[in-house]
Amino acid sequence: MQRFALIGAGFIGSVHAQNLASHPDVDFKLIYDIDPQRAAGLASQHGAKAATSLDQIFDNDDLDAVFIASSTDSHAQNLRYAADAGLAALVEKPIDLDLETAKSTVAYVERAGIKAMVNFNRRFDRAHAELKDLVSSGEIGELALLQLTSRGPALPPLDYLKTSGGQFRDQAVHFFDLARWISGQDPVRVHAFGSALSAPEIAEFGDVDTSISALAFPSGALAQIDCVRHTNYGYDEHIEVLGSDAMAESERQRSGHVSILRGQAAQSHGLHSNWFDRVQPTYAASLGAFVQALEEDGEVPISLREGLKSQAIAQAATRSISSGHSEIVDYSL
Amino acid sequence: MQRFALIGAGFIGSVHAQNLASHPDVDFKLIYDIDPQRAAGLASQHGAKAATSLDQIFDNDDLDAVFIASSTDSHAQNLRYAADAGLAALVEKPIDLDLETAKSTVAYVERAGIKAMVNFNRRFDRAHAELKDLVSSGEIGELALLQLTSRGPALPPLDYLKTSGGQFRDQAVHFFDLARWISGQDPVRVHAFGSALSAPEIAEFGDVDTSISALAFPSGALAQIDCVRHTNYGYDEHIEVLGSDAMAESERQRSGHVSILRGQAAQSHGLHSNWFDRVQPTYAASLGAFVQALEEDGEVPISLREGLKSQAIAQAATRSISSGHSEIVDYSL
Amino acid sequence: MQRFALIGAGFIGSVHAQNLASHPDVDFKLIYDIDPQRAAGLASQHGAKAATSLDQIFDNDDLDAVFIASSTDSHAQNLRYAADAGLAALVEKPIDLDLETAKSTVAYVERAGIKAMVNFNRRFDRAHAELKDLVSSGEIGELALLQLTSRGPALPPLDYLKTSGGQFRDQAVHFFDLARWISGQDPVRVHAFGSALSAPEIAEFGDVDTSISALAFPSGALAQIDCVRHTNYGYDEHIEVLGSDAMAESERQRSGHVSILRGQAAQSHGLHSNWFDRVQPTYAASLGAFVQALEEDGEVPISLREGLKSQAIAQAATRSISSGHSEIVDYSL
Amino acid sequence: MQRFALIGAGFIGSVHAQNLASHPDVDFKLIYDIDPQRAAGLASQHGAKAATSLDQIFDNDDLDAVFIASSTDSHAQNLRYAADAGLAALVEKPIDLDLETAKSTVAYVERAGIKAMVNFNRRFDRAHAELKDLVSSGEIGELALLQLTSRGPALPPLDYLKTSGGQFRDQAVHFFDLARWISGQDPVRVHAFGSALSAPEIAEFGDVDTSISALAFPSGALAQIDCVRHTNYGYDEHIEVLGSDAMAESERQRSGHVSILRGQAAQSHGLHSNWFDRVQPTYAASLGAFVQALEEDGEVPISLREGLKSQAIAQAATRSISSGHSEIVDYSL
Repeated sequence: MQRFALIGAGFIGSVHAQNLASHPDVDFKLIYDIDPQRAAGLASQHGAKAATSLDQIFDNDDLDAVFIASSTDSHAQNLRYAADAGLAALVEKPIDLDLETAKSTVAYVERAGIKAMVNFNRRFDRAHAELKDLVSSGEIGELALLQLTSRGPALPPLDYLKTSGGQFRDQAVHFFDLARWISGQDPVRVHAFGSALSAPEIAEFGDVDTSISALAFPSGALAQIDCVRHTNYGYDEHIEVLGSDAMAESERQRSGHVSILRGQAAQSHGLHSNWFDRVQPTYAASLGAFVQALEEDGEVPISLREGLKSQAIAQAATRSISSGHSEIVDYSL
Repeated sequence: MQRFALIGAGFIGSVHAQNLASHPDVDFKLIYDIDPQRAAGLASQHGAKAATSLDQIFDNDDLDAVFIASSTDSHAQNLRYAADAGLAALVEKPIDLDLETAKSTVAYVERAGIKAMVNFNRRFDRAHAELKDLVSSGEIGELALLQLTSRGPALPPLDYLKTSGGQFRDQAVHFFDLARWISGQDPVRVHAFGSALSAPEIAEFGDVDTSISALAFPSGALAQIDCVRHTNYGYDEHIEVLGSDAMAESERQRSGHVSILRGQAAQSHGLHSNWFDRVQPTYAASLGAFVQALEEDGEVPISLREGLKSQAIAQAATRSISSGHSEIVDYSL
Repeated sequence: MQRFALIGAGFIGSVHAQNLASHPDVDFKLIYDIDPQRAAGLASQHGAKAATSLDQIFDNDDLDAVFIASSTDSHAQNLRYAADAGLAALVEKPIDLDLETAKSTVAYVERAGIKAMVNFNRRFDRAHAELKDLVSSGEIGELALLQLTSRGPALPPLDYLKTSGGQFRDQAVHFFDLARWISGQDPVRVHAFGSALSAPEIAEFGDVDTSISALAFPSGALAQIDCVRHTNYGYDEHIEVLGSDAMAESERQRSGHVSILRGQAAQSHGLHSNWFDRVQPTYAASLGAFVQALEEDGEVPISLREGLKSQAIAQAATRSISSGHSEIVDYSL
Repeated sequence: MQRFALIGAGFIGSVHAQNLASHPDVDFKLIYDIDPQRAAGLASQHGAKAATSLDQIFDNDDLDAVFIASSTDSHAQNLRYAADAGLAALVEKPIDLDLETAKSTVAYVERAGIKAMVNFNRRFDRAHAELKDLVSSGEIGELALLQLTSRGPALPPLDYLKTSGGQFRDQAVHFFDLARWISGQDPVRVHAFGSALSAPEIAEFGDVDTSISALAFPSGALAQIDCVRHTNYGYDEHIEVLGSDAMAESERQRSGHVSILRGQAAQSHGLHSNWFDRVQPTYAASLGAFVQALEEDGEVPISLREGLKSQAIAQAATRSISSGHSEIVDYSL
């Protein structure tokens, strides 16, 4: 049984609270949030207690692990606190928007020797994981091409976007990570084009909402990633892997199972109306894998260093937009 | 808040226990089973108590409702006890395999005036319910044809089959009920062909494992129902409704979302390997509808009388196999 | 090279004329129609000559074969003429609407010893033929169930319907034939329900436009066939075969390959707007198989006797509607 | 009626010969090939005559148009001959592999004032053309993203590849053209990554067999194009267009319509085994559009200048591979 605290009681924090409460091997103890009332409300829903200060978490002998789901700018600090306290840590991505800060944080945490995992939850999507298995087992032959799509459904609030680090660090980074994970390789070069099409303000603070990234892997395999903030047809996530022997696809997933034939057309359920409905099962699975690593004293499935590498690609893609060049990815972490 | 007891702690009882424990408006008090250890084990998993006699349920001022999921031959008796005790009752189908016993039980329960519902859970399948809405809203025009399929995945144990009442009363009855519900009509005639193809023993006790039933509705609409006990490709349940304006389909549901193209073939996930995976969400939804009726003092969505009518069709289909005729359905209930 | 005459220059005759003109092993000589101008027009399009009397066809040393696509009531007579003239004959179904006349015609033709084939063109549908192969090769195991659908798109003119012999003899007979062919068995009993839903006049002359037929085969396998004259979604033809090892489907075929995702829905091309677009390739294939039998002096793929058997099922289905019984199919031909 | 000669009797020449012979408004007169026997053989199949010298075509008062399907290095010369002779010309792409030669040829032809069209046949794919209509009618809103795929099925012979101009000029150019045509815009920048994965010899002569190209359009819309020479699953061509209101897809097209459910998998027909089966109908449609322009004295649908522009993109993509930059497309034609 692992005794957990949760830091952060916002939308994603409440998702994690639900999963912590339901996990048979988790004893869900404490929730902290900068808004004490929000912490108290969420805690009462799940039989946990509200912490009124971080000290109650990091100076506490009755805890084994902390789930860091607070605002992005506090991830690094909370990781250092967990390292100091000897608590295992599961942290929402990114470690820090500033890659240098992220690097030094990871080095600090590694020296402390705690188990720490960055929450690239999409690695726990059942269909994406099947692609990973098909590639690594050699069943599709030598990898030639990856095609990853993440689109929509709606532009996040501009306030969020301003502090998000940009589309590559915020949205595409999940797919840079999936590309690395599925291929089993770290791409050497990246090129990106991007446009601000859905709201002119996005360009004003130097971001894009529609982008295509191209990755070149050491083996010669290539990847394309298209990311769009706003569609008018829900959230669209799908992946193809082409090998020398076969092509496998983690398909678009529809939101229902009814179709209607009328006149000259067939109509069926479209995609999920929001990204959360599409990826929801991955959160419990990701937590489950972390808890299992703690219970069995094994390796966490996604080290912080993995998080850094995927962030490095996002960094290079962001540079490519300005330079007009393809950029070498710098993994000197 | 509704205080519940559960009778029956077998496979389906344990499904209901999980749903009772998770429902926010249910206070899950007691579980009874003829095997006291089974009751105790299930109760401890869900924070309920084990009842050691039925009296603890039916002579108990701290209960509002009982979920009857015991063996088929005890449904009628438990319904009468619930009627006597003034407890609301949700009962697994059938009320009784013997239609006369079922009729008198329903009459008894109705006189007592308790809220009672028969658990035709498939009415709570989201996709099937969309078909019902498309028909009753007139969106597909006048109903012409229904096609219902229920196949596989594996022959139940022969011991079960011997006491099941036969394929029409046990398996097809769900689809007779769906046909009535979706069409909004009671069929007047039924014809059936059936064969015992997967195991010769089935014929020995007068049952079939492969059958096709044809229903004629008062409006002239027709229905076809094919039921198969054993497939080699999982559990296949799907429904089509053809109207004068459009055709709508509650589609086959695949068990995953990966496809592979290799050589001249495309391969993808097939159907669910068992019926439970396919229909699982309907159990919580069905319970939810019953609890809502109790909380709001409304009508239960599926009266016992509805259960009798669908059973009457199964009765007529069974007769048709022997007579070689189409049979008139007798609704004099 | 086979020298052909065509009898009948209506819609289906003009389809056959096109295929006769394109076939590399056919020398397309003559066209006869009761309307001489129609014959002349069609002949001039395809480099054939117009015959002004049937004698020019049946008393002609420069012909090898005749394609009989005249009105139904002249099929039997033209077959007898072909038998007398020693010409091979490919005849549109049915041989005659009256089963007794059809039987005596077949006996007459068989005595004459000419090659004669009834044009059940759907046996030459590529996808349906794959099902036949999957069944006869044993690849799906022992056959358990067949599901055949033929729907729409529009009610034929009432004048046509009055002389068509009814829905079973006119429309369903193709699917009775496919059921026999795919299963490799002659069904022993048939039951049918039918309604006149799209136009009240149909009931006045004793026909139906919506029907479901059930067939029982000697092996215990069963078949369901649903036929509808009018849909509002084009022409829908598809078939399933369920065996003990696998289920195979000749799928619905869409009329195009574009889909649109918008809002919460996906829209794609529906089915073909008419039956001819769906089955068109089968006509050339059927003719090709007949010509090949002539060229190689082999057996024709569908003997007239095959035509009689499928017609006998239609006869029994028609009887079943009136009797309310399932009917034994009488194959004493 | 347009009197045609065909230059080139190889594989694609024989496809064009078939279409010329079948077109109701074409009088198919002559075929020339550098191999006189090949010309004679093809001519006899289609009721045309073999020309033994180009003079018989270009010094001939009985011709209206010439279809240039000879080897790539003779396209430009034959276009000039047609210009001199005043014959309309339909020419296979490219005009010339050398862009400067192509430019001067187009200028020469334009001065002569003949009707001339480059045969980008994929513009006549019915499904692709629906996408074009959906974009230009505004039905999907403002264009944001194009995704074009062309893969497989097999590496062409190395001898062919050596003189093909490389993957961008030979294969991708069709999709650069579709991107321009569907979007209604000329891209301003292009970036490409490419690898030689299926055969090391390809790298030796400076070509690639697996490439991803990224295009940036003036409006801010972006396009991704992935091209692969060799798959193990047939020929895969499909296109997506994402607009601000909807996303439309010209789907993968399967080679048949049968699916099999067995165990835990569904298997169906895969893609066409070769590119020709997939695109075949476009050749007749393309010829038809050219003939219609001649008959009605209208504009040809794809001017030679259109061909130059699409070639200019291929040129820039080829440069991008070496430079590692994105490249500006030079349309100063």
